[in-house]
Amino acid sequence: MDLGLLYSGGKDSSLAALLLEDFYDVTLVTATFGVLDAHEHARETAAELGFDFETVELDDAVAAEAVDRMMADGYPRNGIQQVHIAALEAVAGTAFDAVADGTRRDDRVPSVSRAQAQSLEDRHGVEYIVPLAGFGRGAVDALVEETLDVTTGPSEEIPKADYETELRTLLAREHDEDAVADVFPDHTQTYVTGLR
Amino acid sequence: MDLGLLYSGGKDSSLAALLLEDFYDVTLVTATFGVLDAHEHARETAAELGFDFETVELDDAVAAEAVDRMMADGYPRNGIQQVHIAALEAVAGTAFDAVADGTRRDDRVPSVSRAQAQSLEDRHGVEYIVPLAGFGRGAVDALVEETLDVTTGPSEEIPKADYETELRTLLAREHDEDAVADVFPDHTQTYVTGLR
Repeated sequence: MDLGLLYSGGKDSSLAALLLEDFYDVTLVTATFGVLDAHEHARETAAELGFDFETVELDDAVAAEAVDRMMADGYPRNGIQQVHIAALEAVAGTAFDAVADGTRRDDRVPSVSRAQAQSLEDRHGVEYIVPLAGFGRGAVDALVEETLDVTTGPSEEIPKADYETELRTLLAREHDEDAVADVFPDHTQTYVTGLR
Repeated sequence: MDLGLLYSGGKDSSLAALLLEDFYDVTLVTATFGVLDAHEHARETAAELGFDFETVELDDAVAAEAVDRMMADGYPRNGIQQVHIAALEAVAGTAFDAVADGTRRDDRVPSVSRAQAQSLEDRHGVEYIVPLAGFGRGAVDALVEETLDVTTGPSEEIPKADYETELRTLLAREHDEDAVADVFPDHTQTYVTGLR
């Protein structure tokens, strides 16, 4: 069964891929607005981990709405949530039998309700799978420690490979660097460099 | 990391075991009230699947309370939920670093809230893991079809290997067979016989 997993190059989506690899033909899929080539980091990590890789391009309007929302809110949560749902819809609309993401039990965002999951499955005729939904922070940290090599640092130095870095860039372009610092204060990012 | 997985011999807990086996030292644990030896079915299936197996004995008071609750309700849901929580507490109280169960995303019961999960983890110093929490019915059915040999039939003929069969027996003893039929109408059970 062909499964497309929304992939950021981070530890959660990398671990999600490892949990699924014995059961599905997993392709890692990084969503992009075509603003940066940050997804090339994800492509490299996917190769390190031994997975097929694709990008999926999201509509500019999705980015514009998310940036407006984040500026209005002063925090990124709702904007990120909008983009995550749009990315899931985009992957579900391609040739995969199943779509997945790296959301954990304790994540506040992104968060897909059971009703949203069912709706995504019914409209696209896919299974939506969240392999880390039943794993808390402690369990994820222990598994990452055991299976992955990671680098951790501030978001400016350790770019996340998916749309989040592009949203920061768009914020800076349309507003300024202060807007980025306001919306994403002290943001720490982890990046997977390979298997342990 | 040593993980104890609550095990019924059914397809959900068997699939949960397969999802975890690359990441934990998994022991399948069947809860019993010491009323029947139905857990011997689970021991056989565990051996077929290549897992270590243990039983954990639950207090008689847990069974008595559950039977009273099911008779009062006229359906099994709340009674089963009480016993499931008691079984998780019992496994979490032993030497395992992590405790898990076979609950699926779409299960109404048993159902452990995020707060209950966090409480279990904090009080016992364990991780609580629900490997199928992010898998809907369709995804589980497809994975079971691919990985497990199963037998399906009415509960009277295909005994579930865990406490549920004992609860049915206690209901019949303390009340009568009609009570069992009232509380568990048309109950279908699946039983795993081995790997595909």
